[in-house]
Order: sequence, then structure tokens, then C-alpha cells
Amino acid sequence: MSDTALSGPATPPDALALAQALIRCPSVTPEEGGALDLLARVLGDAGFAVERPVFSEAGTPDIQNLYARLGTAAPCLVFAGHTDVVPPGDAGSWRHDPFGGEVADGMLYGRGAADMKGGIACWLAATLAHLRAHGRPAGSIAFLITGDEEGPAVNGTVKLLDWARARGERFDHCVLGEPTNPAALGDMIKIGRRGSLTGRITVHGRQGHVAYPHRAENPIPGMLRLAAALLAEPLDTGTAHFDASNLEFTTLDVGNPSTNVIPAEARATFNIRFNDTWTAETLGAEIRARLERAAGNAVRFSLDLLPSNSPAFLTQPDAFVDLVSDAILAETGRRPALSTTGGTSDARFIKDACPVIEFGLVGETMHQVDECVAVADLERLTAIYRRVLAAYFAR
Amino acid sequence: MSDTALSGPATPPDALALAQALIRCPSVTPEEGGALDLLARVLGDAGFAVERPVFSEAGTPDIQNLYARLGTAAPCLVFAGHTDVVPPGDAGSWRHDPFGGEVADGMLYGRGAADMKGGIACWLAATLAHLRAHGRPAGSIAFLITGDEEGPAVNGTVKLLDWARARGERFDHCVLGEPTNPAALGDMIKIGRRGSLTGRITVHGRQGHVAYPHRAENPIPGMLRLAAALLAEPLDTGTAHFDASNLEFTTLDVGNPSTNVIPAEARATFNIRFNDTWTAETLGAEIRARLERAAGNAVRFSLDLLPSNSPAFLTQPDAFVDLVSDAILAETGRRPALSTTGGTSDARFIKDACPVIEFGLVGETMHQVDECVAVADLERLTAIYRRVLAAYFAR
Repeated sequence: MSDTALSGPATPPDALALAQALIRCPSVTPEEGGALDLLARVLGDAGFAVERPVFSEAGTPDIQNLYARLGTAAPCLVFAGHTDVVPPGDAGSWRHDPFGGEVADGMLYGRGAADMKGGIACWLAATLAHLRAHGRPAGSIAFLITGDEEGPAVNGTVKLLDWARARGERFDHCVLGEPTNPAALGDMIKIGRRGSLTGRITVHGRQGHVAYPHRAENPIPGMLRLAAALLAEPLDTGTAHFDASNLEFTTLDVGNPSTNVIPAEARATFNIRFNDTWTAETLGAEIRARLERAAGNAVRFSLDLLPSNSPAFLTQPDAFVDLVSDAILAETGRRPALSTTGGTSDARFIKDACPVIEFGLVGETMHQVDECVAVADLERLTAIYRRVLAAYFAR
Repeated sequence: MSDTALSGPATPPDALALAQALIRCPSVTPEEGGALDLLARVLGDAGFAVERPVFSEAGTPDIQNLYARLGTAAPCLVFAGHTDVVPPGDAGSWRHDPFGGEVADGMLYGRGAADMKGGIACWLAATLAHLRAHGRPAGSIAFLITGDEEGPAVNGTVKLLDWARARGERFDHCVLGEPTNPAALGDMIKIGRRGSLTGRITVHGRQGHVAYPHRAENPIPGMLRLAAALLAEPLDTGTAHFDASNLEFTTLDVGNPSTNVIPAEARATFNIRFNDTWTAETLGAEIRARLERAAGNAVRFSLDLLPSNSPAFLTQPDAFVDLVSDAILAETGRRPALSTTGGTSDARFIKDACPVIEFGLVGETMHQVDECVAVADLERLTAIYRRVLAAYFAR
């Protein structure tokens, strides 16, 4: 698709054309790759005021971001997303050029097709179509797009939100366009996420020779006891919108190369995905209490809880969630699950600015070789987003 | 002490002079350091036939050894030991030169003072005094001295015994002069040792994201279960001359740096010091059976048992053990414990050639900074060894 095709079309470009153009921008974090330039041009042409803040921090690459707004009045419906993508990995093992945006057998291939250039293209196409059909909204439409979601995420959404807040920007509702559907479009809206807490346990012993265990103190049995104590009882049984909190040990290390030496120390790391039963603080206190009970006077240990910026959060199902759910039902014939499963996303930051839901494409192939989405899904997601815009501004 | 003093004395050199001369030879494994030369000279002067076999093996340093024998008749009482020493570590933290052989406040300081140049010096002084007092024995006295006990021990006692066997050398009893006394001279004769068996457990899982544990299989809970199963029940309760067998986990490793990834594999190593209830084979089978019971269908694991050249062995208490015990009682007023505790020693190889007991100095400071022995202990151990020689050849 030519530049002209995007900048002055008789009819607005469709989601497929926009997605292909975005995929052809090689925007592997931290590279902008032309993707934000493309959005800026299209949004500028459509009348949006476009800002391109660049954020820096020592030790991390400078990152380009984009903020665009049409209108100043409330309510403001903001779409959030990222144009950066993970690397293609072994490009030779792709059947289609990861930056080619090729269509084959009804599928659009390319890095970012699902995560999440496709989602951005759909919202942008929906917005252009909405404006063409309805004119300027009674309120505002905004875009909050970062180039640093897949990377360190230091110069991305967190700073972009701070920057917008400092400018006095206010948002009423947000749609984050991450690929939320496990298998089919319409499966799932995410209305919150579990929190994440990481802790490290160190059990202290006393080194010695295996032949003289009474002169040493092996930390490994103590670690087995503490670790078993954390796994023995579930943390909770789940809540209205959340699965049960889950603890996984991610590593357990002693690093003793000598088979005749009792080591001095054993270390373990665990990560907990927790629901709204807990805050990071109350959960940390519970973990500490369980460890202390299990240790008694027999095990000397220390617990380090890593600072967590991933609280459990929930966007209470309300009229806005219903509005999105109804739009999905109307287009797909399916009522989406309201889910809080999966890994963390930038929604955990956006939720402090306004209620946020996540709904996008099918995530099955994200981060994989031959990442792809169905062209039909691009069309249907665009239609869903159009219904969301129409219903939101008709209220 | 001058060379002349050792080679042509009016009276034989005493244990202190010999120990000092040996300590001044810097014989850190694999260096000979002059220590075997010194023994060869003194033994040669005393009429021993001295051999100096050097053993080699690809990938290990060549090692000098010494075999000396006076007489050809049976019975042959052989003294075994090693002149090599562990490194001094931080020489600057020693109060006395580790290779100086200094005496201060009644203590002889130096690397090897206890382990085991002091013991060699005592047996050598006792032998010279015995020969001076009684002339040639009705039987043979032999020395089996290696320079590779503290190192890889590949070119030491094992090969020296093979070499002697090939020459037709036959031994009737052996005294190994390792420092066997935990705190005071006369505490303990070692009449055997526990065996040693090392095994590695690997628990196999499936890697995945901590946020999606149902798509992964964390190997750590399985490892906790298997490890706990091995520690749950004692292996045995000990036998007539042995403590209970003891299992220690020496390491437990996953090595996963990511706090959001469930690892694919967990590994643990254990070492068992086992008594004469078991052979390495029966014990390995018991461990495998316990792991299989604990794993059931829930845990996928593999067990690798390392080849063990450390069987449990016992020199049955008999007239020879009584003879040594009586000699200790006569000099110290204490009846030594007959023990099978502690780490392995070259006795596990010598036991295939003849009955072997271990008795030497006090081991408290062995391998430590400021290793030392009491000068009075050198004198008393020499007196004990003289009683052993006198009683042995008077039979």
C-alpha cells in the first residue's frame, strides 16, 4: 500500500491495509521502525492533535511514544496499545517474511499481526469509519500508544500516563487492544489481572564434611520443609472474578559442586499470581507467617520480597463492560467470558487513570514463528470496535 | 636439623626432629618437596630396601611414592601413610610459617604436623629405636608411603598396592598413621569406615509461563516430594561397630534466572555414608525403590548412581586390634574407642591386602591454619608405636 493510499483515500483505509502497513515497519523494541510515524500521519489527517513524547532513562534506550486526541470534552474514550514487537527469532523458519504483511489462505502473517499491530489497525479503521459516518464525537477519542511494551517497559506506558496526567488529560474509559482471545474472536474480555509477587527464601546452615554431619547444619532439609509448607495449603479458593491465587517455585539453588561437602546455604525463588483477596503487603505477611510457623526454632531463614508493581486489580463489570460485551455478542454471536487470567499487561498501570478493559484479536500465535491472524477476524474486530464507539458516544 | 644429623646420628633422630625436617619439605600435592627423599635416606641408612615407584596417568600429574622393607620373612607389619599435604591457604594468616616446623609453647606448628607428617615421624622414630634395641625383627617391617592422598589419589595407594602385589609383596597387618583422635591422644582407633555412595536425581517437568501453570509442569514440587521421601525414614539404626547410615543432600539446583518462567528440570545430589548393612548395590536399589514409591505416576524422574569405590568395611576386632589398644592404654591410661566414623581414607584400599587399623595423632587442626600437634603427643605416639612393634614381633 502506497503512502498516498493512506494519506488521502476516498474511503478510509481498512484494517487489513493498516495492519499490513504497520507490520512492514520493523519496530522490534526499542526501534520505532516507522510504525508511530504512520499512525501520526493517519491520525493527523483525520484531525487528531498528535504528540510524540520521547522518554529516556539512564541505562535504557530512548523510546518514542504517541499520544493523539480528537476533541477536548468528556467523556474521553482512550485506546491503548503498543507498536513494538518481539524479535522474529529465526527468520529463516518463518514461512512468510515476518515483516512482509503477506496474506495467504485468508490469514495475515507477520510479527505483530496478533500482538498487537492488528488490534491497533482495527481500532484505527473503526475510528476513521466512525468519524466518517458520525462526524466528531460528543466527547473525545484518544490514542495512547507506546513503543516499549515488549522491552524493559521503563520508557513506555507508565511515563506516558504520567506525562498525560501532567498535561491535564483526563480519560473516562480505556480499551487496551491486546490479543485476549485464547482461540476464537469473542472468547474473552479481560477485566482485570491477578497481581504478581516474587520472593526469595534463603535457608542458612553451616558448611561441613558429609562424613561429620553433626558438626555441620545442612540447609537443604530446612528448605524442603519451608517450601513444602508454602505448597501445603492453597492461599485461597478464588473470588467472584478471579481464580485461586497460585504459587510457583521458579528456582531452587545451592550450587555446591562438592559431593562430600554439606553446603552453607540454600536459596529458592517463588512467584505468586494472586487475586483480589490480597494486596502484595497482606500476601507477603501471610507468606512470612507460614514460613515462620514451619521453621519454628529448627530452620534459620530469611525472606526477601521483591517490590511488586503488579497489584491484583478488577474493573468492576458495569455499563461499560456490558457495552463492549454486547458489541462482541452482536458481531460474533458469543457472549465473552469476563476474565482475569493470564500474565500482567499495561492495564495494571492504566487502571489508575480510568476503568480499563482488554479486548483484541486471537493470541494463539503471538510471539511465535508465523504469527498470524485471520483477515476475517480483522474485519469482525473492526466491526466490534465500531459498535463500541457508536454505543459509547450515543449514550 | 642438618642433613648430617639425620644421616649419621650417634642416637637415632627423635620424632620431633623428623617431623620438623618433613614439615620443612614443601610437599603440597602433587609436589614431592624432598619429603620422600628424606625418608628414603633415613630408611636406607637403617638397612631398608627402598623403592621409589613413580605412577602416571593421562590428565593427572606424575606422583612419586615410596616402598621400603626390612626383611623378607612373615609376618610383615606395614606402616602406611602420605607425605603430601593440602595447601596452606592464606599463608599470611598463619602465626607460624606453614613450612617452618617451629615449636612454640610445647606445640609443633606446620602444614602436615597432624596430617600426617607427624604420624610418619613417630612411626619412623619408633622403628629406628626398635631396631637399635632389638635388632632385626623376626619378620619384616615395611613402609608404604604415597605422595598422592590429598589430591586426586589416582597415582597413590591404589597403584602402590597393585605394584607391591605384582612384586609378590605380602603384608600381614597394617597401621595407617592418619590422625584418628578427635581431641586427645588415645581417644580412638579406627577399625573400619562407612561406605560412600553418591547419587543424582533429576525431576523432569515442562517449561512454561508462571501465569499459565496448567500449561506447564513444575518439577520443583516433585523434587520436594522425592527429597522428603529419602529423608523421611532412617536407612537403618546402625550395627555392632557402625553408626546408622546417613544421607545428606549436598546440592539442589534449578538455575532458572527468570521469575516468570516455570523451569523444565530440577536436579539434586545426595551422598550417603553407609554401614555394613549395605553394599553400594543393595543401597542403590533401596534408594531407587523409595524414589519410585514416592513418585508414583505423578513425578517423572531419573536417578544416576555414581560408581562407588568406597565400600563399608570392618577390620574385625581381634588380637592385633587388642595389641594396639593395649599399647595405647599402657601409654595414655585410656582404652581407645574402636570406631568406624568419619570420612574415607586409604584404609579402604589397604583392607584388600591385609587387616588394617588407623591410629595416629590428634586431628583437631588438620587442614586448618596453624595446624599443630603437641610435642608431648609426638613423644607419646612414638612410645605407643614402639610398644606395638615390640609386642608384634615378640608374639
